[in-house]
Amino acid sequence: MTELTSKVDIEARKKAAEILRQKFLKLKEAIDQGEPPIMEIPKRTLSNTIYDENKKLLLLGSAKLKRNFLDLNEAKRFMQTTLMASIIYDALINNEYPTIRDLYYRGKHSIVIKDPSGKTHEENTWDEQKESDSVIVDIEVFTSLLREDMLILSKEKGKVVGDMRIRSGNDVIDLSKLGHGAYSIEPTPDLIDFIDINAEFVLVVEKDAVFQQLHRVGFWKKYKAILVTSAGQPDRATRRFVRRLNEELKLPVYILTDADPYGWYIYSVFRIGSINLSYESERLATPNARFLGVSMVDIFGDGKKKAYLTEQERRNFIIKAKDADIKRAQEIMNYPWFKSESWKKEIDIFLKKKAKLEIEAMASKGLQFLAFTYIPDKINNGDYII
Amino acid sequence: MTELTSKVDIEARKKAAEILRQKFLKLKEAIDQGEPPIMEIPKRTLSNTIYDENKKLLLLGSAKLKRNFLDLNEAKRFMQTTLMASIIYDALINNEYPTIRDLYYRGKHSIVIKDPSGKTHEENTWDEQKESDSVIVDIEVFTSLLREDMLILSKEKGKVVGDMRIRSGNDVIDLSKLGHGAYSIEPTPDLIDFIDINAEFVLVVEKDAVFQQLHRVGFWKKYKAILVTSAGQPDRATRRFVRRLNEELKLPVYILTDADPYGWYIYSVFRIGSINLSYESERLATPNARFLGVSMVDIFGDGKKKAYLTEQERRNFIIKAKDADIKRAQEIMNYPWFKSESWKKEIDIFLKKKAKLEIEAMASKGLQFLAFTYIPDKINNGDYII
Repeated sequence: MTELTSKVDIEARKKAAEILRQKFLKLKEAIDQGEPPIMEIPKRTLSNTIYDENKKLLLLGSAKLKRNFLDLNEAKRFMQTTLMASIIYDALINNEYPTIRDLYYRGKHSIVIKDPSGKTHEENTWDEQKESDSVIVDIEVFTSLLREDMLILSKEKGKVVGDMRIRSGNDVIDLSKLGHGAYSIEPTPDLIDFIDINAEFVLVVEKDAVFQQLHRVGFWKKYKAILVTSAGQPDRATRRFVRRLNEELKLPVYILTDADPYGWYIYSVFRIGSINLSYESERLATPNARFLGVSMVDIFGDGKKKAYLTEQERRNFIIKAKDADIKRAQEIMNYPWFKSESWKKEIDIFLKKKAKLEIEAMASKGLQFLAFTYIPDKINNGDYII
Repeated sequence: MTELTSKVDIEARKKAAEILRQKFLKLKEAIDQGEPPIMEIPKRTLSNTIYDENKKLLLLGSAKLKRNFLDLNEAKRFMQTTLMASIIYDALINNEYPTIRDLYYRGKHSIVIKDPSGKTHEENTWDEQKESDSVIVDIEVFTSLLREDMLILSKEKGKVVGDMRIRSGNDVIDLSKLGHGAYSIEPTPDLIDFIDINAEFVLVVEKDAVFQQLHRVGFWKKYKAILVTSAGQPDRATRRFVRRLNEELKLPVYILTDADPYGWYIYSVFRIGSINLSYESERLATPNARFLGVSMVDIFGDGKKKAYLTEQERRNFIIKAKDADIKRAQEIMNYPWFKSESWKKEIDIFLKKKAKLEIEAMASKGLQFLAFTYIPDKINNGDYII
């Protein structure tokens, strides 16, 4: 019988299992020496989440918390953490590929305890997935292994096409030979090898349908682009894949979204990381990512630049901003990485005009216009926002 | 410069443009002959939606409506239909690939009319996308061209891996050589050629994460399966692709979903089509599709069959059904294609136990169990529901 799983995975398993084992072995050693077992874990609080001006990343600070098994307030969380670590370890050595959802199920049960008086107590390991998810994050920051390193899989929305060859598992895939379809990025993008590439930049498109259009019309062939879609809010694998294209292959990364605060937020997640998950920014974020558009200046123009839309087109295409959009914009303007002059102008126009625009409106002027005028013009003119 | 678009697309464009032109030419001929232009379009009402017991499909009946330009009640819809047809025609001959969203934008504008007294009136072509979408469907049933035949693209969630080679656009893609990733199905699956295949059945998995797990553990290699995910509610391209695998390659199709009415509905969409879009069932539905599980009998067992779950596992895994689930189940039991003995039993158990189960719970018993015991056992034993 042919091998069912790839050699890459076998190596990755071994490595992760060993790190996990070593890290938790220290707890056992403490117990063997008659000392209370204590885990020291970086704090994942807002006050320990720092925007690093140099790296231009949201990172965890240096504050740590101690999780002591003999502290009554900490005992349950200690139990949850070691339980989850042992489940993940078992999965690693048994050739399993769990998801965070099935890790939740794997650990979910009631522990029955008799107290000294003989009375029986029942305690659930966890009730909700958010509890077990939070424990997984603890293990990630404790071991410095991302969940992907531990072969924990997830659903995947990201796709890519372009003139490059990659190795994934046992195969070499030519991302320029996929016909009208695309390559769906694997949930463990660190296991991909970049073999060779003939491209000048990466274009990340928020919307899958626009990705399909640009792919089909030959955009990436004409402009030597690697074309990626996040299909909405980007997942971890898509972010890591884009980061690697930027960091390892030195390709500039442009983000194309709707002209609205939701689009800006997608750019922000690619560039900086999400505020809740700052521990992973160092590996998932692309601090050099550029917001290509659609920008408010593209829609309305300004003193220096003519708008891409006519008055008539604005009347037909513009959507009135909702209260939630306005609120989101007001939040976003307080983030340090949205304080540049060009972002200030962008957000100001939005708040003044209370108008947003979908990328599809640009496509409706002609896909030829979007693919062969708007996008290449903006890239050639350095007309992006950072 | 290399060709930016594929020859297949150029052929498809020509064909669709010609059919569209011929169909609408008849309206012009009527006008030329001094007759009122009238479109005769199959009725898309519930009363004209018929469950065909032989074909086991929801189909449009023979009732037609007449849309007369000179009827004041019909004039606007007539205008919308011809406007949309001309936009689609222009897109076809201009090498565009519109989406339904940008077709909405392309046609959106105000028509200014002066009445005989010289007074000015303004009328919008359409205000909401649901209006323009409905017109697109009219054109589909009027011309018997699906939107995909007219190169109208859309976002795409479906993925596939397995031991088969296909031709898409100018490329041949080996779906068994994709590493840990997958092939993202194109929005126009009728343009795919099946070249050769080495597989015995198709397994369609509702959840993308479970698809990732089964792919990674080598399920499709071991059992000669074509593994597909719809990533939730299936889109048109995934449905058409699965139908073609069944119809042209004679592969049995098994659907694997959560054990709940939402999962049953996904099966139903694959098998019968959606009630709103019965006009497309004849090409998108797979009337031979089989519901593999997870079934209520798998969870609870019955007189003849032992449950796959222990009492303990049921306690940890089962989720209490919500009112919306119960309501959905009560609707579903009235559909003619859910009236078989085995479906009756399934729905009865659900309504009695008021319990549902996620497929991830099965994976948490061990992915090895899910991939190498549960699924193959059920297929080998013919333990599916139709």
